[in-house]
Amino acid sequence: MIIDAHAHYTSAPPELQAYRGRQIMNLRKPPRPRLQVSDEQLERSMRNQFKRMQDSGIDRLLFSPQASAMGHHFGSELVSRYWTEACNDLIARLGRLFPDKVSPVCQLPQSPGVSPKSWVEELERCVQEQGFVACNINPDVAGGGEPFTPSLGDEWWYPLWEKMVELDIPGTIHASASLNPAMHTTISYYIAHHHSGAVELLSSRVFQDFPTLKLIIPHGGGAIPYQWNRHRGMHVREGHEPFEEAVRRVYWQGLLAYKLGGQAVGR
Amino acid sequence: MIIDAHAHYTSAPPELQAYRGRQIMNLRKPPRPRLQVSDEQLERSMRNQFKRMQDSGIDRLLFSPQASAMGHHFGSELVSRYWTEACNDLIARLGRLFPDKVSPVCQLPQSPGVSPKSWVEELERCVQEQGFVACNINPDVAGGGEPFTPSLGDEWWYPLWEKMVELDIPGTIHASASLNPAMHTTISYYIAHHHSGAVELLSSRVFQDFPTLKLIIPHGGGAIPYQWNRHRGMHVREGHEPFEEAVRRVYWQGLLAYKLGGQAVGR
Repeated sequence: MIIDAHAHYTSAPPELQAYRGRQIMNLRKPPRPRLQVSDEQLERSMRNQFKRMQDSGIDRLLFSPQASAMGHHFGSELVSRYWTEACNDLIARLGRLFPDKVSPVCQLPQSPGVSPKSWVEELERCVQEQGFVACNINPDVAGGGEPFTPSLGDEWWYPLWEKMVELDIPGTIHASASLNPAMHTTISYYIAHHHSGAVELLSSRVFQDFPTLKLIIPHGGGAIPYQWNRHRGMHVREGHEPFEEAVRRVYWQGLLAYKLGGQAVGR
Repeated sequence: MIIDAHAHYTSAPPELQAYRGRQIMNLRKPPRPRLQVSDEQLERSMRNQFKRMQDSGIDRLLFSPQASAMGHHFGSELVSRYWTEACNDLIARLGRLFPDKVSPVCQLPQSPGVSPKSWVEELERCVQEQGFVACNINPDVAGGGEPFTPSLGDEWWYPLWEKMVELDIPGTIHASASLNPAMHTTISYYIAHHHSGAVELLSSRVFQDFPTLKLIIPHGGGAIPYQWNRHRGMHVREGHEPFEEAVRRVYWQGLLAYKLGGQAVGR
């Protein structure tokens, strides 16, 4: 069975972003999401996704909300929570409508300065009540701005790792939109933060403290394989376990898709 | 002749950082640098650099102040200007002491929110009065925090490009220390910003407007060759010139040093 472990709902019906748009008008008192979206609309929104699966011989999608739209930097904790519920609930419906093709993956109600302790309730709701199989984790909650998010190697994140281990689900490290005008969201910002997320994890004691934690680093790990010797040197210099061993503790997504990129390096 | 185009003065006498330390005490009224450093101290501080050159068969260094110490985020515009003068003046002395080995490269008095128009005076002083042959350019002046620095493709930077073309000197894109606890300065932050700097330049019209501008992207271009197809796709999608042509407009430093990294990708 071929599973696409990294697919986003970039084709959601406009009702979803219309709710997001109304959040801007209602920052004072964020309204709960009450989307009017029919099963038929959801089905139509998935046709291109299913065509792509068929064309590429993919059997199943690990399917999550649009990553750049997670926008955890926007608004208060409650704004982020309601938006997250709206996105996750649509993904849950897709999982129920297409159980043979779609495995639902949730986003988390992250918000600048808010502890991971506040995210686990939504994670539990998604996994225990709605059949989600994984989550996406934004390593840079404020979108490139401030306040900075603690390093993924910091114990600040431990309440999330504890809950993921308890629920036995993997997570993908995935940033959302860049606020920095000098960092293109998909071409620079994702690469930067999936790279630095891996650097922080691999030089930390997270996998000693959570040996069964499963984390996926997408986009080929940013520049990790390309800058291999740079990382190796840092692990020696700073006294971490050998880099060659550390890299086996996470799952790398996307290497194959970049094979040509890899060859270009060797030229 | 073999030139190391990317060498920093990481071995400066402690008098330099002592002046920096005193800046913290005197933010109210920054004192001009008046370092007491003898030629003999400078000579001693270069012994390991020259040994490394001899061991590696390097004939000449493009030699600039320590990059992580540029710290443009720290203090006011005047604090940054005085610190920059202190750093550049030591490099100038090394250029005069060792003209057959050291080609001086300056840092710029960058400061958050301050226009490049305010940096060109120091650049002129260095090149015209002190024989500097190049400059380092920090693409992320606030060290990963706010205010954000405009994209290197933005016209905000044009006063600097104009002066560099007029003086006929190249520049290396080089960030300074990271303020973000989740981004290791040399392993993640440099890689992120030298990558995104290249992305911004290559998708801009900078080299149409300044055809003779010479910019060097260090550290193998962050992840540029590794994420080759990602960039190619973006150039097609956003209507820029083909990526294969765009990459010829800048000079890439460090590819060879990462050959093993490149091979690791292909495995």
